[in-house]
Amino acid sequence: MIIPKAIQNLIESFERLPGVGQKTAQRLTFYLLHVPQGELDRFASALQNLKKDTILCSNCFMIGETNPCDICSNLERDHSVVCVVEQPLDVIALEKGGRYKGIYHVLHGKIDPLNNIGPDEIYISQLISKLKTQNSRLPKPGTGGQAKVKEVILATNPTMEGEATAMYIAKQLKTQNSNVKITRIGRGLPIGADLEYADEVTLQRAMEGRSSY
Amino acid sequence: MIIPKAIQNLIESFERLPGVGQKTAQRLTFYLLHVPQGELDRFASALQNLKKDTILCSNCFMIGETNPCDICSNLERDHSVVCVVEQPLDVIALEKGGRYKGIYHVLHGKIDPLNNIGPDEIYISQLISKLKTQNSRLPKPGTGGQAKVKEVILATNPTMEGEATAMYIAKQLKTQNSNVKITRIGRGLPIGADLEYADEVTLQRAMEGRSSY
Repeated sequence: MIIPKAIQNLIESFERLPGVGQKTAQRLTFYLLHVPQGELDRFASALQNLKKDTILCSNCFMIGETNPCDICSNLERDHSVVCVVEQPLDVIALEKGGRYKGIYHVLHGKIDPLNNIGPDEIYISQLISKLKTQNSRLPKPGTGGQAKVKEVILATNPTMEGEATAMYIAKQLKTQNSNVKITRIGRGLPIGADLEYADEVTLQRAMEGRSSY
Repeated sequence: MIIPKAIQNLIESFERLPGVGQKTAQRLTFYLLHVPQGELDRFASALQNLKKDTILCSNCFMIGETNPCDICSNLERDHSVVCVVEQPLDVIALEKGGRYKGIYHVLHGKIDPLNNIGPDEIYISQLISKLKTQNSRLPKPGTGGQAKVKEVILATNPTMEGEATAMYIAKQLKTQNSNVKITRIGRGLPIGADLEYADEVTLQRAMEGRSSY
């Protein structure tokens, strides 16, 4: 039995997505056969316009509709705090909380030697040169003027690669921007967790990162 | 932070797919941002042409490129055996084996009262009337002519609903086509299974369906 070309094409397109295998691709495709044509057309145009209607912010490398993006062009936000994250989705996750008022810098990846991703493959040099130029503009001697960026929060994932990326960036920043405070996002037990089921490293981090009452 | 409209549109399209939640939809969408535009266009056109380039076979209700489909129009296949399945994907699964040489009948569902799907919502009446007309054509007295369809294999899934559907069809066929053999696909232990971990019902079925050596 030959699967019709139109169905095979869509199965193959679905299979290229991460985490979608042959069975899932088939299931999704056959599901879509029962969906009205209008919905398929909407899906198709959403795909076609995905990249056409979005742009990378030249300041923070977040994906947005404008350049600079909403966050970078918002003067009410604190431009002296930069939160460094791995992916655009991390920005969305942090913004959902709505508590953070600084700006971001999206690396679009992490240092991952096993997958041939070194520091030059992600937006690290852009972060360093951005901080350099912004901070070199200011402090005139005697005015008490401060560097524009005061704090860099390294919020890469607490994984092996994320920690290595954070460490690399911290090292680079320390050698070049002596007056910038560099912090790492807190690691410990997530809210709702159970001490009993936490792994050793998390517990160790939670003890190290304890705060006084 | 407002997610760009183009991204939000695609996330919403993905979310409508079965088994795809918000997180997966976001992950897939942001993955596609890194994919070349050509591939997005291919994906989009595959979606748009999915239904335009396929047709339901008027004989077996399989989805194909032609009507009647490849299987129904293939004269080398045994048209006297009809295998009744729930979904088009089941036909593909059975055809992968390549051993079955009969034809199919796709119900496009199963009797499922909890989801308001009765016998009239799926292609049961079409199966019954098809058998009726095909079998009424033939047996002229004295010629030894046989009914065109000799066997109906009920290959709905061995789930509660699948069994009920098979039972319903068997009952209907028995009252109307006395000379058609009705069989149910074998149920028992799947190849590679472990007796120890099999559930009671499967074991019971396996015992009932034992065959002599």
